[in-house]
Parts: sequence; C-alpha cells; structure tokens
Amino acid sequence: MPSKHKEELSFTSEVRVRFSECDPLGIVWHGNYIQFFEDAREAFGRHHGISYLDQKANNYSTPIVSSKCEHKLPLAYGDIARVKATYIDSAAAKMIFKYEIMNPQGEIVCTGETVQVFVELGGELSLTLPDFFRKWKIKVGLLDE
Amino acid sequence: MPSKHKEELSFTSEVRVRFSECDPLGIVWHGNYIQFFEDAREAFGRHHGISYLDQKANNYSTPIVSSKCEHKLPLAYGDIARVKATYIDSAAAKMIFKYEIMNPQGEIVCTGETVQVFVELGGELSLTLPDFFRKWKIKVGLLDE
Amino acid sequence: MPSKHKEELSFTSEVRVRFSECDPLGIVWHGNYIQFFEDAREAFGRHHGISYLDQKANNYSTPIVSSKCEHKLPLAYGDIARVKATYIDSAAAKMIFKYEIMNPQGEIVCTGETVQVFVELGGELSLTLPDFFRKWKIKVGLLDE
Amino acid sequence: MPSKHKEELSFTSEVRVRFSECDPLGIVWHGNYIQFFEDAREAFGRHHGISYLDQKANNYSTPIVSSKCEHKLPLAYGDIARVKATYIDSAAAKMIFKYEIMNPQGEIVCTGETVQVFVELGGELSLTLPDFFRKWKIKVGLLDE
Repeated sequence: MPSKHKEELSFTSEVRVRFSECDPLGIVWHGNYIQFFEDAREAFGRHHGISYLDQKANNYSTPIVSSKCEHKLPLAYGDIARVKATYIDSAAAKMIFKYEIMNPQGEIVCTGETVQVFVELGGELSLTLPDFFRKWKIKVGLLDE
Repeated sequence: MPSKHKEELSFTSEVRVRFSECDPLGIVWHGNYIQFFEDAREAFGRHHGISYLDQKANNYSTPIVSSKCEHKLPLAYGDIARVKATYIDSAAAKMIFKYEIMNPQGEIVCTGETVQVFVELGGELSLTLPDFFRKWKIKVGLLDE
Repeated sequence: MPSKHKEELSFTSEVRVRFSECDPLGIVWHGNYIQFFEDAREAFGRHHGISYLDQKANNYSTPIVSSKCEHKLPLAYGDIARVKATYIDSAAAKMIFKYEIMNPQGEIVCTGETVQVFVELGGELSLTLPDFFRKWKIKVGLLDE
Repeated sequence: MPSKHKEELSFTSEVRVRFSECDPLGIVWHGNYIQFFEDAREAFGRHHGISYLDQKANNYSTPIVSSKCEHKLPLAYGDIARVKATYIDSAAAKMIFKYEIMNPQGEIVCTGETVQVFVELGGELSLTLPDFFRKWKIKVGLLDE
C-alpha cells in the first residue's frame, strides 16, 4: 500500500521590518533573524495545528539545540519580507525546520535551520516521539496510523 | 533621638553601548534606555544588598508599575555611559528609583524614574512593606529599628 | 466659519505577544511596551498617511524626547493585544501620542505617552512646524488652510 | 626560516545574564546567544586592537554572512558566563570566529561560529584582504611581513 507521506510541510508568513531591528548601517541586525525564524515557526504552528502551547499542555517543552543562519542580502526598515518555514521530516525525536526569507523583490536574503528536541516537564530529554506529536504527524499526513 | 535616615542611597554603574542597541540614525534606540535603567537598578541591588533573587527567595516579585524617560542628548555605539540609580525613600509599599545617564563628557543624556510594587507569589499586591524589605531599609539606615 | 478641527485622531492595531518578549515570570517584560507603542505609532502613520519615511524624505527625523508607561495588568505569551495610538494635537512643534493597550478581555493593561520633536538633517531642532507636517495636519483636518 | 604564525588568537570575556534575556522557561532565550557572541567578538577586538570603529575608519564594514549556534545546557538569570572568542585564521578575505560559552561551573553551554566578509563603503565585496586588516594580522603575528 502506498504511503501518504508528504515530503514537506511548509508555511509562509510575512514580517515587517521594524526601525529598532535595524542597526547603524541601516539594515536588520543579524541577530534579529533568529526572531524572524521563530515568528515563522509559530505561524507554521498556528496554520498546521501544532503550537508551543499544545506542547506545554502535553507537559513538554521543545528547546532549540541548534540554529544556523546564512545571509545573502540585507533587509531594511519598512521592508515586508516573506518567511517560509518548512518542517523537515525525520524519524528522530526532533523537530527540524528550514527557513527562507525573501525580500519584497522575491530574492532570497537569508536561509536557516533550527533543530528542537522534546524535553519532559521534569527536564528529561525524550528519546522517542511524544504521543501528542506522533498524533500530529498522523493528522498532517507525515505518518501512517 | 536623632534619626539616622539618609536622604538618598544611590549607585553609579557603567554601560557600554552595543552596536545592536543603536538604530539607523546611529544612536541608541529610545526603548533601550529602559534596559539601561534595569541594569543600573540591579547594579544598585548588588551593591546595597537587595536583589531580585532576594525578593524571590522571600516569595515576592516586584513588577514595574510605572516608568518615565526624558531624553536630552543621544548616545552612540561604543560610548561608555554612566548610569546613576537613586533609591527614593517612601513610606508606601513601593520601590521608587530615579535615574541619570551621563555620556563620556559628563553631560546628562537621559533622566528617568521607575516605580515597583510588592506582589506576593500568589499574585496578591502587598499593601504593607514586606518584612525582608523593612529589614533591608533598617540595615542601610533608611529606617530606625 | 466653524472650524473642521477634530478633537483627536487615533488608530488601533494588534500585537501578538511573542515568547521572547516574556520574562521568567511568564509576562511581557516591561521594557517591551515601548516597542508596542512604536509599532502602534507606525500603524497609525501608515493609516493616516504620515510615516517615518515621509519625514526622512523631507529631511527631518523625529526623535522621542519623552516617554511614559503605566502598567495595570500583565500580558502573557500568545495574547493578542489591541493598541490604540491617539495623536494629541498641539500648536507646538511636537508630536504627542497617547497609547492604550487592551488585553483580549478588553481590559486596559497599559497606558502611555510619547513626545517627539522635529530635527532637521543637520541636527538643528525645529522650533516651528515643518511644512510637510503642516500639510499633513491640514489634510487630516487638524488645521485650517 | 620558521614562521611566527600562531595557531589561534583568543580572548575570554564575561557576560552577566539579564532578567530580560530569559524567557518564560526561566532560561536565556536562544536568540540572545548571538548577542553574547557579538559582545565576545567586540571584547576580543578591544583586547587585540582591531575594532568595528577601526574598520569604519578604514571605510569598511564587516557584515556577518553566516552564524551557527549549538546549545548544550541552559543559562539562567544572574549567571555569569564566560565567553571565549577565537579568531580562526584563513587566507581568504574573511573573518572567522569560534565561540565557547561556559557556565559558572565551567561546563560548556553553547558553541558557535560566525563568518564576516569585508565590504567597502560603496557596497563592494572585497575579494582580497584589506590593507588595514593585513597590517593587523602582521601585528598580532598571524602573517609574516
């Protein structure tokens, strides 16, 4: 029987560059892209029905263990950028997201990746996929029941 | 019997302006001064023996209920500013601090004020001075025993 | 001839509270409200046709010279707050805004005020209303021609 | 003739974790580590005599084109962390830094890397080492004259 697994699940949201996010060179300070990634990941979660608050309700937190960011072009104050967050499927007890930020001209200004793990409220790292997350993967077609 | 009350208790600390704290005009973005005030208040607390962690150990938090900031001159990247935090004594169950930020030339660039209240860990506003704070005021000479 | 002056001009925008804007107490760190005020002021400007970039195109900057913030209730991660920015008319060469932030239940969590002045690109404080701003006040009905 | 090239040049500075840098989980929000890296890089620059302001005086900016961050352990409010920034020598017209952040117990909480390029004030990417930077490398013993 053929699997219904999708290869990727993504969501694109917008971010309007704030004055205070730009530095004396007039461009977004590089550290602020990590916030843009988080904003995009949260927008993904709201769209696809898996949020930080769901995690919390299930007694898990999902700390970032790794993040990467490659800058190709700058963004300036007032730019409305589009941020695409793509969930990268994996059998491991991890959440991997890739990001692409596009400027108003549609050029890629930045790419990135974050990796999150599942930690139980007591502080224990989960080595297997938590049940609530397995259910979500089934719901969105990334896992067969 | 003469009181030993001091009129004010203050502490001056330094802050080095970060690149990311400056905006496209090349000066510190105004919202960052609130952080400079907090840094100065914490340095005051470390110097005079009353810290956020003491408050927490005594089951209190001390949320800011009001803040004010008046800007007279800008600060730029790399400037080492001096921030004077002064505790303004009051009979009320409040902590009031005034701030003066000076640039490397000794000019006042910014003045401000914050007011904090005492909230018990359950969330109840304290209408009287918490015991740990009364003891601190006695220790630093702001209250007679 | 009756004046067409309005008493106030306002605009209400939304802000979704970010995880990173909340502190260890689980509520928005007080310094972040200054950013919410700026976001609301900019949304006001886009709606009413007067923006930072207009100012810049006319060779002016409009630094904040004073800000105030009164906190009544906390906001938490995920809250969608409404921020009303109201332009307070004045004959002086200043821009005064008042702010009201409401939580999802419609309660006022925070009020504030900012005052901005007009500075010419050379750095000179403008003692009279710049021409572009006078034109804007006429356009929105705050000044007769 | 033996080269005097050192294998690495590093500097360790301290960072005191601010209340506002911690999130509702009570730990430093991951995006703030990028700031800690920048603080450490600037402290390195002050110690070893190569600063952002030198770059600017020589009509160059040095934007970050890539950053990475691996998180192993959390940091909490009040922790005094040590951040070691190491300049990784390279023949290319780049500045590569590696970072190690240690908690008060001496455990590594975070490692990272940033890559910067040299951009002339007109906006042109420099494909060769700028003269002021070559001189610095000679001065600190990373290049023979």
